Amino acid sequence: MKALYPGSFDPITYGHLDILERAANLFDEVVITVAVNTRKESVFTAEERVQIIQDAIKDKAWGNKVKVDSFTGLLVEHAKKSNVQTLIRGVRQLSDFEYEFRMALMNRRLAPDIDTVFLMPREELTFVSATLVREVAYWGGDLSQFVPPHVETLIKEKFKK
Amino acid sequence: MKALYPGSFDPITYGHLDILERAANLFDEVVITVAVNTRKESVFTAEERVQIIQDAIKDKAWGNKVKVDSFTGLLVEHAKKSNVQTLIRGVRQLSDFEYEFRMALMNRRLAPDIDTVFLMPREELTFVSATLVREVAYWGGDLSQFVPPHVETLIKEKFKK
Amino acid sequence: MKALYPGSFDPITYGHLDILERAANLFDEVVITVAVNTRKESVFTAEERVQIIQDAIKDKAWGNKVKVDSFTGLLVEHAKKSNVQTLIRGVRQLSDFEYEFRMALMNRRLAPDIDTVFLMPREELTFVSATLVREVAYWGGDLSQFVPPHVETLIKEKFKK
Amino acid sequence: MKALYPGSFDPITYGHLDILERAANLFDEVVITVAVNTRKESVFTAEERVQIIQDAIKDKAWGNKVKVDSFTGLLVEHAKKSNVQTLIRGVRQLSDFEYEFRMALMNRRLAPDIDTVFLMPREELTFVSATLVREVAYWGGDLSQFVPPHVETLIKEKFKK
Amino acid sequence: MKALYPGSFDPITYGHLDILERAANLFDEVVITVAVNTRKESVFTAEERVQIIQDAIKDKAWGNKVKVDSFTGLLVEHAKKSNVQTLIRGVRQLSDFEYEFRMALMNRRLAPDIDTVFLMPREELTFVSATLVREVAYWGGDLSQFVPPHVETLIKEKFKK
Amino acid sequence: MKALYPGSFDPITYGHLDILERAANLFDEVVITVAVNTRKESVFTAEERVQIIQDAIKDKAWGNKVKVDSFTGLLVEHAKKSNVQTLIRGVRQLSDFEYEFRMALMNRRLAPDIDTVFLMPREELTFVSATLVREVAYWGGDLSQFVPPHVETLIKEKFKK
Repeated sequence: MKALYPGSFDPITYGHLDILERAANLFDEVVITVAVNTRKESVFTAEERVQIIQDAIKDKAWGNKVKVDSFTGLLVEHAKKSNVQTLIRGVRQLSDFEYEFRMALMNRRLAPDIDTVFLMPREELTFVSATLVREVAYWGGDLSQFVPPHVETLIKEKFKK
Repeated sequence: MKALYPGSFDPITYGHLDILERAANLFDEVVITVAVNTRKESVFTAEERVQIIQDAIKDKAWGNKVKVDSFTGLLVEHAKKSNVQTLIRGVRQLSDFEYEFRMALMNRRLAPDIDTVFLMPREELTFVSATLVREVAYWGGDLSQFVPPHVETLIKEKFKK
Repeated sequence: MKALYPGSFDPITYGHLDILERAANLFDEVVITVAVNTRKESVFTAEERVQIIQDAIKDKAWGNKVKVDSFTGLLVEHAKKSNVQTLIRGVRQLSDFEYEFRMALMNRRLAPDIDTVFLMPREELTFVSATLVREVAYWGGDLSQFVPPHVETLIKEKFKK
Repeated sequence: MKALYPGSFDPITYGHLDILERAANLFDEVVITVAVNTRKESVFTAEERVQIIQDAIKDKAWGNKVKVDSFTGLLVEHAKKSNVQTLIRGVRQLSDFEYEFRMALMNRRLAPDIDTVFLMPREELTFVSATLVREVAYWGGDLSQFVPPHVETLIKEKFKK
Repeated sequence: MKALYPGSFDPITYGHLDILERAANLFDEVVITVAVNTRKESVFTAEERVQIIQDAIKDKAWGNKVKVDSFTGLLVEHAKKSNVQTLIRGVRQLSDFEYEFRMALMNRRLAPDIDTVFLMPREELTFVSATLVREVAYWGGDLSQFVPPHVETLIKEKFKK
Repeated sequence: MKALYPGSFDPITYGHLDILERAANLFDEVVITVAVNTRKESVFTAEERVQIIQDAIKDKAWGNKVKVDSFTGLLVEHAKKSNVQTLIRGVRQLSDFEYEFRMALMNRRLAPDIDTVFLMPREELTFVSATLVREVAYWGGDLSQFVPPHVETLIKEKFKK
């Protein structure tokens, strides 16, 4: 069974990596896919985000079960093209859940064959979000608990410019 | 008894129409009123949104109980000018409810005589929102489950330009 | 238009009376109906609860629009027998809302013609519940902000026995 | 991959069966396991609940991927004995989610190798719960939208006695 | 400044002790007070619960700032008698918060001079509750992550009987 | 004990002042500190916001326990420089709480010695937010229930320009 783990990943955090590992334990193959929204500003380009993820997983025991790609457009269309019937979403908090629930219902309407599986990260990663990571990075705070070292280096460079 | 059903309706969805029909069953007259916020971008102009609603209800059995207008400014001022003491709000989810609750308390402070009535759409319309409709429309997805045919045609034209 | 306002009302509080008044302003007739659950212990009998409500509304300007009765069994069956198509429910908080939402969806399934209207009490009555009233009464605390004087007298007598 | 779907199932509803089918599509084998709590009253005995589930799935296309058993004690102990590392839980609403989240964190502490996967039923089954089914059955209401016919017959017999 | 930390503490957990330590850091004196509800069954008697707390804090650096007592009746009455104007409550989750919020509003009504301060335990104690501890203890599970060793010994003895 | 009460305060409302007074009753000194976010537009400059707060508290009985300053950057860095170990946050609603909870966990990670204390405003201020105040001000509505008179004058001047 193959699953798709979509997200902005701008940038990938330890919270995302925790979900990705759990998904890799459950499925034969997991495609982590960067959603590219041309109408929204991002810190990293789609190519950078894909590269950052590849670097983050290359030494993991489960890394060989994971592929990285990106897409633009409707998620369910990308899932159909990728022959995937399972979407992975991480849920950390109630407010996540409500938004995710609504998205999952919408996706199910657009593509009834595609189902969404919710996974829960380690509790100490509950509060980590890419938004907070960008905020702390902007002010030069310590990111070592939230993202891998290469991500910390790259995001701090972005905000130096 | 007359009631006011305010919203952005950018564009109106089957979820809004479901609430409107329930309101028309409860009250002698319902005015659905497009809130025009000059500081926020919209896909459709106020005039277009009013016209779209009129077209959506013209063949409904309950359509004759409904009037369509628009306003700019504070909702409670518009309600007073319209001699209405009841506001209609649809609630689909908990997060809706919290926001709606806060708005209703604020409106009650600004105009103690005006009360808010909450109605609940059909469960299969729970996840439909104008925001999601605009998103799916932008990417060319199928909208037939979410909005009437003429709305689908019009919003797809908007995104073609 | 006629509406039904069901509840345990064990006993009726200022929060319930606030909702009842709002309902009386909206509808031509409101039947407040005591749900009798023979499997659950109550402080007051069904007859006592009906009498307490009648005493609480008899001097109200809107009292003549309200009838009081009680029922046992399924609420939607009682609504059908009473020729009522509108149920009134007060929502004070998010957790209320979630429970009420689920009940309303269930009732809609059991009787699609019956709709539920949610009203919101005055904000300073938000935390008043019959459960808390019984708790304070049990320990002999002051109830004057939560229930009418005759209710305070009666519930304190109950806990003296 | 094998998964465990635990619950009280007193009785099983269409909501549970929907989750079970989704789980059967995701995993090679799913064990649906009746949690027997000797300190809590139930309408059906553990044996009855197992039998009811077996009857409910015997004609399903996916029925051969499902086993039914029961357990008493701690869920994670039962999972370990069954050589299962994945638990299935259905989430219908926010309040479900909060409780499930807490249980999943606790189970992860007691058994770090065991992970929980959350699935979402069809939206029109969102409000169906065994508690509501027992309530409607008690009062003799129509259960055909909530449980399979043989469950409706059996639970109505229980409440006749 | 003196504060009161009320609860059932049946039994005290590492979650409660975490809150207690934070309170001891904020206030000159903290009274942790066992709420005795004669209408509710408890695993430990009031005297046992007080003793268990005393044993749990006697070697803590902050233990000398804490007193232990118990009360029956209304919390605000006990606070007034104890000359305390600040109540401490731990909040772990949203559902906690909603209940606590309602209680705090009620207490403020009953005694406007008494205010409630909410503290948040360490995130890895978020899911620990006395209810779950009793459940795991009943089934003989490992409690070492949730309660101090002497509490584990005592509660397991209780369930042996 | 000294505490820091951070926020945007654009502008300060009666809700903020209520929390500030409660904090002043609990702590020896409270520093209310305007968070300056150079990437976000504000109605008032940092200097104006500081001045507005000073004017709002200068005649209060508890005003002498309060200092006003502003900061840019990470809150926990400002707290460390100010030798403060306690942060004050007001929580009015569930959605506030979830956001505040996440921020508090993040801050605790960045600075384990700094703790967050949550306080609750008077219930009739529950719905007041600076966002709603700005909205009502923009449309020329009456602000007298939400902000002190000098704030109403100043914000209306801003929107006249």
